Amino acid sequence: MNPKKPREVPVHDKDGLPMARLDVERTKRCGSPEAVFALRKTPAETTAIVKALVRAQGHALVTRADPETTRALRRAWKNIKVAPHAGTALVGKMPAKCSGCGWVAIAAAGTSDLPVVEEAELTLDSLGIESRVFADIGVAGIHRLFARLDDLSGASVIITVAGMEGALPSVLAGLVSAPVIAIPTSVGYGASFGGLSALLGMLNSCSPGITVVNIDNGFGAAVAAARMLALRE
Amino acid sequence: MNPKKPREVPVHDKDGLPMARLDVERTKRCGSPEAVFALRKTPAETTAIVKALVRAQGHALVTRADPETTRALRRAWKNIKVAPHAGTALVGKMPAKCSGCGWVAIAAAGTSDLPVVEEAELTLDSLGIESRVFADIGVAGIHRLFARLDDLSGASVIITVAGMEGALPSVLAGLVSAPVIAIPTSVGYGASFGGLSALLGMLNSCSPGITVVNIDNGFGAAVAAARMLALRE
Amino acid sequence: MNPKKPREVPVHDKDGLPMARLDVERTKRCGSPEAVFALRKTPAETTAIVKALVRAQGHALVTRADPETTRALRRAWKNIKVAPHAGTALVGKMPAKCSGCGWVAIAAAGTSDLPVVEEAELTLDSLGIESRVFADIGVAGIHRLFARLDDLSGASVIITVAGMEGALPSVLAGLVSAPVIAIPTSVGYGASFGGLSALLGMLNSCSPGITVVNIDNGFGAAVAAARMLALRE
Amino acid sequence: MNPKKPREVPVHDKDGLPMARLDVERTKRCGSPEAVFALRKTPAETTAIVKALVRAQGHALVTRADPETTRALRRAWKNIKVAPHAGTALVGKMPAKCSGCGWVAIAAAGTSDLPVVEEAELTLDSLGIESRVFADIGVAGIHRLFARLDDLSGASVIITVAGMEGALPSVLAGLVSAPVIAIPTSVGYGASFGGLSALLGMLNSCSPGITVVNIDNGFGAAVAAARMLALRE
Amino acid sequence: MNPKKPREVPVHDKDGLPMARLDVERTKRCGSPEAVFALRKTPAETTAIVKALVRAQGHALVTRADPETTRALRRAWKNIKVAPHAGTALVGKMPAKCSGCGWVAIAAAGTSDLPVVEEAELTLDSLGIESRVFADIGVAGIHRLFARLDDLSGASVIITVAGMEGALPSVLAGLVSAPVIAIPTSVGYGASFGGLSALLGMLNSCSPGITVVNIDNGFGAAVAAARMLALRE
Amino acid sequence: MNPKKPREVPVHDKDGLPMARLDVERTKRCGSPEAVFALRKTPAETTAIVKALVRAQGHALVTRADPETTRALRRAWKNIKVAPHAGTALVGKMPAKCSGCGWVAIAAAGTSDLPVVEEAELTLDSLGIESRVFADIGVAGIHRLFARLDDLSGASVIITVAGMEGALPSVLAGLVSAPVIAIPTSVGYGASFGGLSALLGMLNSCSPGITVVNIDNGFGAAVAAARMLALRE
Amino acid sequence: MNPKKPREVPVHDKDGLPMARLDVERTKRCGSPEAVFALRKTPAETTAIVKALVRAQGHALVTRADPETTRALRRAWKNIKVAPHAGTALVGKMPAKCSGCGWVAIAAAGTSDLPVVEEAELTLDSLGIESRVFADIGVAGIHRLFARLDDLSGASVIITVAGMEGALPSVLAGLVSAPVIAIPTSVGYGASFGGLSALLGMLNSCSPGITVVNIDNGFGAAVAAARMLALRE
Amino acid sequence: MNPKKPREVPVHDKDGLPMARLDVERTKRCGSPEAVFALRKTPAETTAIVKALVRAQGHALVTRADPETTRALRRAWKNIKVAPHAGTALVGKMPAKCSGCGWVAIAAAGTSDLPVVEEAELTLDSLGIESRVFADIGVAGIHRLFARLDDLSGASVIITVAGMEGALPSVLAGLVSAPVIAIPTSVGYGASFGGLSALLGMLNSCSPGITVVNIDNGFGAAVAAARMLALRE
Repeated sequence: MNPKKPREVPVHDKDGLPMARLDVERTKRCGSPEAVFALRKTPAETTAIVKALVRAQGHALVTRADPETTRALRRAWKNIKVAPHAGTALVGKMPAKCSGCGWVAIAAAGTSDLPVVEEAELTLDSLGIESRVFADIGVAGIHRLFARLDDLSGASVIITVAGMEGALPSVLAGLVSAPVIAIPTSVGYGASFGGLSALLGMLNSCSPGITVVNIDNGFGAAVAAARMLALRE
Repeated sequence: MNPKKPREVPVHDKDGLPMARLDVERTKRCGSPEAVFALRKTPAETTAIVKALVRAQGHALVTRADPETTRALRRAWKNIKVAPHAGTALVGKMPAKCSGCGWVAIAAAGTSDLPVVEEAELTLDSLGIESRVFADIGVAGIHRLFARLDDLSGASVIITVAGMEGALPSVLAGLVSAPVIAIPTSVGYGASFGGLSALLGMLNSCSPGITVVNIDNGFGAAVAAARMLALRE
Repeated sequence: MNPKKPREVPVHDKDGLPMARLDVERTKRCGSPEAVFALRKTPAETTAIVKALVRAQGHALVTRADPETTRALRRAWKNIKVAPHAGTALVGKMPAKCSGCGWVAIAAAGTSDLPVVEEAELTLDSLGIESRVFADIGVAGIHRLFARLDDLSGASVIITVAGMEGALPSVLAGLVSAPVIAIPTSVGYGASFGGLSALLGMLNSCSPGITVVNIDNGFGAAVAAARMLALRE
Repeated sequence: MNPKKPREVPVHDKDGLPMARLDVERTKRCGSPEAVFALRKTPAETTAIVKALVRAQGHALVTRADPETTRALRRAWKNIKVAPHAGTALVGKMPAKCSGCGWVAIAAAGTSDLPVVEEAELTLDSLGIESRVFADIGVAGIHRLFARLDDLSGASVIITVAGMEGALPSVLAGLVSAPVIAIPTSVGYGASFGGLSALLGMLNSCSPGITVVNIDNGFGAAVAAARMLALRE
Repeated sequence: MNPKKPREVPVHDKDGLPMARLDVERTKRCGSPEAVFALRKTPAETTAIVKALVRAQGHALVTRADPETTRALRRAWKNIKVAPHAGTALVGKMPAKCSGCGWVAIAAAGTSDLPVVEEAELTLDSLGIESRVFADIGVAGIHRLFARLDDLSGASVIITVAGMEGALPSVLAGLVSAPVIAIPTSVGYGASFGGLSALLGMLNSCSPGITVVNIDNGFGAAVAAARMLALRE
Repeated sequence: MNPKKPREVPVHDKDGLPMARLDVERTKRCGSPEAVFALRKTPAETTAIVKALVRAQGHALVTRADPETTRALRRAWKNIKVAPHAGTALVGKMPAKCSGCGWVAIAAAGTSDLPVVEEAELTLDSLGIESRVFADIGVAGIHRLFARLDDLSGASVIITVAGMEGALPSVLAGLVSAPVIAIPTSVGYGASFGGLSALLGMLNSCSPGITVVNIDNGFGAAVAAARMLALRE
Repeated sequence: MNPKKPREVPVHDKDGLPMARLDVERTKRCGSPEAVFALRKTPAETTAIVKALVRAQGHALVTRADPETTRALRRAWKNIKVAPHAGTALVGKMPAKCSGCGWVAIAAAGTSDLPVVEEAELTLDSLGIESRVFADIGVAGIHRLFARLDDLSGASVIITVAGMEGALPSVLAGLVSAPVIAIPTSVGYGASFGGLSALLGMLNSCSPGITVVNIDNGFGAAVAAARMLALRE
Repeated sequence: MNPKKPREVPVHDKDGLPMARLDVERTKRCGSPEAVFALRKTPAETTAIVKALVRAQGHALVTRADPETTRALRRAWKNIKVAPHAGTALVGKMPAKCSGCGWVAIAAAGTSDLPVVEEAELTLDSLGIESRVFADIGVAGIHRLFARLDDLSGASVIITVAGMEGALPSVLAGLVSAPVIAIPTSVGYGASFGGLSALLGMLNSCSPGITVVNIDNGFGAAVAAARMLALRE
């Protein structure tokens, strides 16, 4: 069976037991970075994995870090960029921005959605892709969307971020021709059921051509956008 | 305990056993008609109840009738108006249209939503209220909504009807000042889960002031609109 | 495409990045106020937005504020009215009560539902609409409802607030002719599933003419009531 | 380990393979009859089991029989009582009515609930217990319930049957002192989700002392009522 | 409309606004006590309501009190009995135990279910009904159940308390003839979904005659048992 | 990357387009047969795939065949064994029964569960494994289970099959030491939600050591049992 | 408000009432075709809309047509291509294949997923985009996927189609660098809950960069792929 | 009724009331240990039960202990092994490892799954069964799995541990012939719904022969593996 076995980097815990196996050639193989998903990892575990990853590839992206982990990372590295509400951190040497690759618009329905916006933004940074944020253009005051439509139309890919009923991508995808990636957020209460309402709304959009990622998944949407932008090359 | 005991009309089955108790003063008491909900009733049961109701108040509205029941009603009454896809029927003398009461707009996102539109329309007919239908103005091509906005703005109450992600009321309620009643429909497939996606979308709308009724409930939305119109008097 | 572009007010964060775009003509356009939904916003974000809103329109309504945000608002403004359990605040100059507009009854099933009652009450205050609260009249002791029925019948619109099985609007809508808006609350435990039981109960009411808003959504119910009251003018 | 091994009656299929083991002493042991649950059984299987049961105990109750099975039973036995909408049949010698045991009220919210009423009624018949049906007394016109309250108060146990929001037991249990068993029915559409709305409503009732059985489970409610009535002896 | 208006006792908050209306004749009317459901009430609200209730009827039962509320109650009354894990308190003069009324068995599957057992036990105490607890007799080691079967058979009513798969009532109801009330508990993790697994198991029991109350609802089960025991009189 | 590429057999539709790729060395590689899952395949598609599979390995197992497909298979092969209610068919040369491999007990709670029993039984036949069925030993009459316990204890692996609350494996696993595989069935109605109640019950069993397969998945349980039996060799 | 009002084509029913408003410039505006969603439309409605669409733009794509509608379309047009299992039809002049645009791989886990594959395939045909199908390469025999990996790597965009646990895109996205669109299908039974299991699996994929569409939504995935391919131009 | 009554050990609380009944012959009877499920027990309750269990059988396994309980256990016993993230503790004399019994592989998809791995590992320790952990071999970089396949193939039973989409057992079961037990974990966010996505994925696996336990249930999987290993003897 092909393909060839990619290089991997083992990480061990303080007792010398194997804890993680880093897939450091993932970017080369499939355009997606090996990032560190910090949820349910201890600060020590995350720091150890980040250290190995920075050594192997020069920088490391961390998502879903709790405040304690974020503090541990800040203590360990100077060269770090943190989006605190999102729990996202980019450690090490920042990749150069790709010129001529186009840019990604991140369009957010409301101010409460900004942490998810930041996770997407920092992920794109880690991939050397330019992005621009369009904040608070939800459909309740649709003139706010129309006022930015010309700017939005210049993007190669549009990531939309919305909680509650998640209607922004439905309206937007009927007005532009770029690929539209929809991120449902857990912003809401009651019958939003932790983002389920926005997720179902986006999956059932009457505007064809929208694709959807998991609730609050700014990281995944950014990686998908990067794969799409690579088609321009 | 008040209030006074309203008049009621018992209906019996063919064995003489009590089957229903008609609340024939409901319209007087609370502005809502006593209608016949035909789901899970046999054609014979429905016909017997309709007969008693027409005798008591001159006409009767039937909802959720299956084709066999509709045929039974057509055989029994000449003076009948039927919306076959909706399974709605209005039997007996049509009420006069109220002049000076204002009118209700019924705005539907797609052609597949029309059966629910018809249930609302015929219910308003049964209450003597004028209505106008705005078909196929869903948000995937939002210019279709803007083209009708001036007309819609003349309505006293707007009923919106949408399946899939149910985004139409969110956009519309941000553009008009009339009360907006949202009916989610079961139009959709897969993760629409029988209308759940549209229902959740409407309940979580970021446009304040929308109220929601049950999935496919054209009857309930029309009765609610009638209660609101009565405030104009 | 019409309509004309409404005025909007941008708000920036401490780094000068755009954070919100206030829709300050929403009340004029659609009778609903631009309020500040504080959930998942930092106290600093909420305060900055409130400041811009008070400057633009004289007062601002805040919903879903956590205690820290409430304290920040109290520090920043003297002219403030706070419903602490609800996390609702009305900042700035109170609007005058509209005389001759009728009034809204807020009927609550139990004492535990009072925070949601307060959110509705303060929202109506912010719109200059009079309201009266009828507390603890749930259906388990239905004489409590009957004892207040005459008073309730004077209301132009009735907002009902109930958790658990949410049966209050079903009973009430069969006894009055005013529009009945139902707010399910998250009061309950076990199979109430955070208010789902009350929500489903209200959506499936056998009393026609009830409309429903999201779980615990006192704000939305109040705005909907305001739209309905405007029909009286 | 006690208790003593009760007698059981094996039933074989046409190939002589064991198919069922009848627990013919269940009534003696725990007051509940061994009944035949016909769902997903073929008419031949059901008929064979009924034959063995009639032989062992003189009569047999069948629930959830489809029309084909009902016809097969009618062909096989003359001495049969069938509730066709419910798919319930009572085959063989009818038990004598117990005098002095009290009686059970079966209170139904709407006409569409009658099939479930019939399943409960025929089950009580099979146990020799008297019952009286109170049809169409749902809470949308609550005067219909009050008009029958004196009669209802004479019952030893009350079974309430309601679909949609299932509010009838909540109101009733606040007015009487007898045990109230609540049967949610699958009557409804849209967000009733096959009876889930009524089930959740009844489980979350604010009236204490209500107990609930499965959706449409007239049989189980009747057996539970029989166990309660036995306390009078 | 009957029945006569029962006496009610209003309670006001510290601003003099009405907060609750006590239904102090509920026990007389329907055998169920007016208890104080403390969930989402402040300690001050609960204490005020308890005070009014003790004044009116000599004692008061409180359920779902958080530790802060429990402490407040202990400070305010000496004559108090508290089940701390359950958050249940019985304040004031304990009712005399009814002799000759029979007794209620409370059979619990596991040690973790004991808080729910205590809520049921204290509620029965407040109604003057004797109860006996059978702890840790779940079906994983079924000999533990058989060892207590003779004792259990002496009970007039059996309340079963079980989390996880909730199989205890299914097995028990096949062995005894008393009414069996099943309380699903939220004990479990993962796919127990907060008690949903036990709730569905109990509703779908293949042993007929079981009735079910809400998850963790020891109070409701006890009140239902009391209604049943009253049939013995 | 290892392992070596296994042989595969392509199947084409009538237009010569590739339709399936048979994994004919799966039994050798992982002890599980390549079976034909007929759900949503046309009779022609299923027949073509079966033909290729019989040619490659002498026999073929088909699951989830509708009656039309079953008829097509009977027409095409004489050497066939069909379980019609289950929609399972075993085509071609029957494998010899393995002697000395031990046997599998299939214990079913009720008669309505027998189709699922048959799917498991025929799958075990196709693997040359002996099985014995223990029908109708559900927990509502637990003496039926105890009466067969000695026989059951001789099995190497026990497959339990139960719908409704699915309590049989919980009780059984506390009495025997063999591995217990639990199949929840969709037998039930109302709140069984198509087998969800039994599935959750089995997953949350308080008896440790039970493993669970999908609802109605007799095939998967049998293959798992075969993998376990191979440990005896 | 911009943008300019696009041309629209109204369609009327046989009574002359408006039924649909075709958005015939959608392809120009946003790269997505105006297709006809036939679910819940009558054959007459669908045929009328197709007629108007063919007149306006030369061809029309129909999705979710039932067999009766498919027959009506075949009778009305000779120039038609139908995928009968999918209910998809392409009516009128076929668009020319775009050369130099790259091609889309459609990778399906199992034979039962082919109807969804066909809907995607025909939609790409209607947009002039080349596609190649890779059938039956699900993860249960992962060598089947590796055998086709070189071919798959040539695609510009990969659409994966899988029911049951939906694991194919997770594995594939870790091996290729093209954008991966995942379509969950409703293939499965029991706890697949109509495709929910595959949908959740795909949304929660540990392989970053996957985007997801609605269950069985071959049309939407194809339109999304077309938007992505346009980035190559 | 057989079987003979096993010995049981009662435990009392500090007031002398019965609290638990230990089933100390469970291992002998059914190969599963009597363990202490500490969730919702107080540290005092857990410690008392552990004390009785250690006295009866020399050691005791505790699962789901919170940090406070873990500390209490550490204070009470020196001879203790604790997996702190899992909340698992093994108190008393460690059982000897069984030689010649084979060993169990525990294969985990990601680093965040390690607490569940530890619960399984310590449970196997308590049963004297050898195990080896294979960490971080999830399907996103499938070469990591292939690199360990030869080692994995030596195991008698394989326990797979995976959150998110839970695809690891599907791939693995197609490559090995040992029994595969799948543990879904609650690792994930958004639409993982606390492990539901992994649970459904594993139940719907297209690889036959996988069996599943509850979310995060390392204990149950280990006990099931022990039952299977006993077949080798």
